[in-house]
Amino acid sequence: MADPRFYSVAGPFTLKEISEISGAKIAGDAAPETLFTDVAPLDRATKDHVSFLDNRLYTDRFSRSQAGTCLVAPALADKAPAGMALLLMDEPYRGYAAVVRSFHPQAKPEPGVAPTASVDVTAKLGAGCQIDAGAVIGPRAEIGGGCHIGANAVIGEGVVIADDCVVAAGVSLAFCIIGARVIIHPGVRIGQDGFGFALGAQGHLKVPQVGRVIVEDDVEIGANTTIDRGAAPDTVIGAGTKIDNLVQIAHNVRIGRGCVIVAQVGISGSTEIGDFVMIGGQAGLTGHLRVGSGARIAAQSGVMRDVADGVTVAGSPAKPAKEHWREQATLANLSKKKKG
Amino acid sequence: MADPRFYSVAGPFTLKEISEISGAKIAGDAAPETLFTDVAPLDRATKDHVSFLDNRLYTDRFSRSQAGTCLVAPALADKAPAGMALLLMDEPYRGYAAVVRSFHPQAKPEPGVAPTASVDVTAKLGAGCQIDAGAVIGPRAEIGGGCHIGANAVIGEGVVIADDCVVAAGVSLAFCIIGARVIIHPGVRIGQDGFGFALGAQGHLKVPQVGRVIVEDDVEIGANTTIDRGAAPDTVIGAGTKIDNLVQIAHNVRIGRGCVIVAQVGISGSTEIGDFVMIGGQAGLTGHLRVGSGARIAAQSGVMRDVADGVTVAGSPAKPAKEHWREQATLANLSKKKKG
Amino acid sequence: MADPRFYSVAGPFTLKEISEISGAKIAGDAAPETLFTDVAPLDRATKDHVSFLDNRLYTDRFSRSQAGTCLVAPALADKAPAGMALLLMDEPYRGYAAVVRSFHPQAKPEPGVAPTASVDVTAKLGAGCQIDAGAVIGPRAEIGGGCHIGANAVIGEGVVIADDCVVAAGVSLAFCIIGARVIIHPGVRIGQDGFGFALGAQGHLKVPQVGRVIVEDDVEIGANTTIDRGAAPDTVIGAGTKIDNLVQIAHNVRIGRGCVIVAQVGISGSTEIGDFVMIGGQAGLTGHLRVGSGARIAAQSGVMRDVADGVTVAGSPAKPAKEHWREQATLANLSKKKKG
Repeated sequence: MADPRFYSVAGPFTLKEISEISGAKIAGDAAPETLFTDVAPLDRATKDHVSFLDNRLYTDRFSRSQAGTCLVAPALADKAPAGMALLLMDEPYRGYAAVVRSFHPQAKPEPGVAPTASVDVTAKLGAGCQIDAGAVIGPRAEIGGGCHIGANAVIGEGVVIADDCVVAAGVSLAFCIIGARVIIHPGVRIGQDGFGFALGAQGHLKVPQVGRVIVEDDVEIGANTTIDRGAAPDTVIGAGTKIDNLVQIAHNVRIGRGCVIVAQVGISGSTEIGDFVMIGGQAGLTGHLRVGSGARIAAQSGVMRDVADGVTVAGSPAKPAKEHWREQATLANLSKKKKG
Repeated sequence: MADPRFYSVAGPFTLKEISEISGAKIAGDAAPETLFTDVAPLDRATKDHVSFLDNRLYTDRFSRSQAGTCLVAPALADKAPAGMALLLMDEPYRGYAAVVRSFHPQAKPEPGVAPTASVDVTAKLGAGCQIDAGAVIGPRAEIGGGCHIGANAVIGEGVVIADDCVVAAGVSLAFCIIGARVIIHPGVRIGQDGFGFALGAQGHLKVPQVGRVIVEDDVEIGANTTIDRGAAPDTVIGAGTKIDNLVQIAHNVRIGRGCVIVAQVGISGSTEIGDFVMIGGQAGLTGHLRVGSGARIAAQSGVMRDVADGVTVAGSPAKPAKEHWREQATLANLSKKKKG
Repeated sequence: MADPRFYSVAGPFTLKEISEISGAKIAGDAAPETLFTDVAPLDRATKDHVSFLDNRLYTDRFSRSQAGTCLVAPALADKAPAGMALLLMDEPYRGYAAVVRSFHPQAKPEPGVAPTASVDVTAKLGAGCQIDAGAVIGPRAEIGGGCHIGANAVIGEGVVIADDCVVAAGVSLAFCIIGARVIIHPGVRIGQDGFGFALGAQGHLKVPQVGRVIVEDDVEIGANTTIDRGAAPDTVIGAGTKIDNLVQIAHNVRIGRGCVIVAQVGISGSTEIGDFVMIGGQAGLTGHLRVGSGARIAAQSGVMRDVADGVTVAGSPAKPAKEHWREQATLANLSKKKKG
């Protein structure tokens, strides 16, 4: 189903193989040797395709789908159309992730340095790196094995990148240490000066920024996101954290492990965020806050106070989500009364 | 009036020619052979310049303007200063657009490939393309006739671009099909992985993204905007839609024809937007929504529910605009009473 | 304390020298000849380091700090740990700025043009410029003395840059005049077309943009920020204004001197902002407004009306901050009563 212009496809795989890849159980008496050629969304899949249902919103599409097989939670299995082979599991989206990965294995770098790339003589490149056209790698930079540095990316002086990273087109990295298996999407800016000024009516005095950015293993950073280096402490992105596009992370921010930060979030200077925190799109956090592990911050929230472990906040100013929604309901009711 | 350092100017044009170009009617007995040399804003124009009044806010500037002639709606004509020739039409800004285009015709590409550009031997370039310094065009990319690819732009493997497009400096395109006459401003990122993870405490599993971005004809995309490719369906931007700077468009989003999306808007995954929808700056839309044609979404709205055709919404959470503004008034009144 | 991989350090300096650099007074009988080797944050400093306390939030860290000396306001001196030499001044952060600058003087450009840079034969470069790999300098561009143009930056045709500017990696500049000592961080986009369309159901008509961007002396512009050129008037950024990352500045906006604009702010077309205005993160301003000098706009505000000199506004829609916070308190109280 994937456009062959852009994607090659592995397989085909049998239903049994897909069951093993995903960890799902084949329902009923579906033939385990049936072959499937690719994944496809519910509304475009044909009998040769594997699809999935993870969001109840799409149950109708599921019921009308022509997909040959579908990963689905047992509770929704009875909505399946006749003739569809079902692959049952509690977390069908996780199973689907594994299936897509099998049909579409991640491209490996094609080792070599493009003739128009500029690699400083003092830089070190690990084995099997692909350095694309126009990429610039500065003095004393160290790049691990199996990395792919995209076209026109700029790796600054002294930057360290561990193994198996992808640095996409047009990225710039400076004053940073990047862990293994990190994916940095196009246009990301890491390590530039933080916004540090001693303000004053006689002019704002620039405070030189002498820290770094530390990006731990398995982080992913979305397109055109900006992460400033620390003022003197470091800015830190914990292992396994996933950051979406156009996010702003200011100097000295420390983000824990496994966080999920949706697009256009802004985190002000020196704020510290625990592990597995979820931050919805366009939320903003002021500086010098502490957000506890497992906290959840709703989209467009304006967080101005510390958030304890596991608490969900919403609104601007952000407060416990129930309180915020109760206030919204109160206002709506009062407004209706006024009218009535 | 335009700085000759940056702009050459065509013309001069007579009042009669400007009337024909704009579709405006010359008022009274203004001399049709009077010559004009350029356009200029009301407060800087002299007798040689054409100006326009479109926003009532600037009626004072109009009344004090030295402009030789001005495009203006008939209803405001009586505010004109003595001696100004008037060009009357109902939509003076549309007329002005045509007049500026005549004085400042769009620059045509200067065909040729800069020596430091990297064009893969398997890429195809149409006739009359200008490929600037440092641009990188990947394997099997196909670029139509009359395109201008800016300095250090990166066109990924297999990307297709139709005729007469402008891809500005530092853009990166991947996994996308671009229509004709599309303008892509500097730093735009199209086609990178969507933010697709199967979340879990044991780590967030990356879901490979195997769709594309389809950008239809006559779209314009502002600087540093990011458009992720589809997860398996495509991300689609409909014909004639205009997108401002720093906008985020997530995977699988489908935007109809003729929409206007102002700066810093964020649209979450799989949301579908009809035709001629207007979205104000910094508004956010959650995922999996449907926004009907002709809907209007106020700046900074937080849209969490479907929006029907033609409805105007405002607020976060967004609701019908009248309801939102009534709530705001209710709160202001209650707060004043408390104080009083 | 700064990572020697990225930073060299000047000094050491004596307590007396640091006192002179900062303008602080040595408290008590601390030995003026004690040597210090670098700056460091309170929680990581040792006896060889200079630290500072500027935010009462960190008084605890100050009391526990191992720093050899610390810049601190006299009012907080009694919280110091035993044995720490104190440097007393009213604005310790300003003093600290000077001290960091002494330990870490700004790197001077290393004059020369990288072999892979493309400098048009008609461009002019001042003395002592450093032009990095892949940078592209267009026809008739003029760059002053002592400028550093980063890797893969693109300086468009006719652009003028005064002395001692830094243009970082991947920036693109067009249709602009840049003052002296301006710092432009990676990925900034200056001078592209403004979002100018005569809207209409028959299609949105592009209005050619024929103005410029004027950036005055001592401005700093954060990573991936976008500044559109004027439609016919210019877009202007006043001297000494500091702009953070991912900010959007639309066409014809005029910003005064010494403003501070935090990350992800959006300013719509033709809005005029006075001197020394502070705009908090993610605030949005609609078009055609006037914001007076000394005004303060809280983070996430939605400014839809003019703001007078010196007024602080908050909320969306923005109103005088006291009024906004009183409304928030009123709503919280009403909501609690309903519940109770």
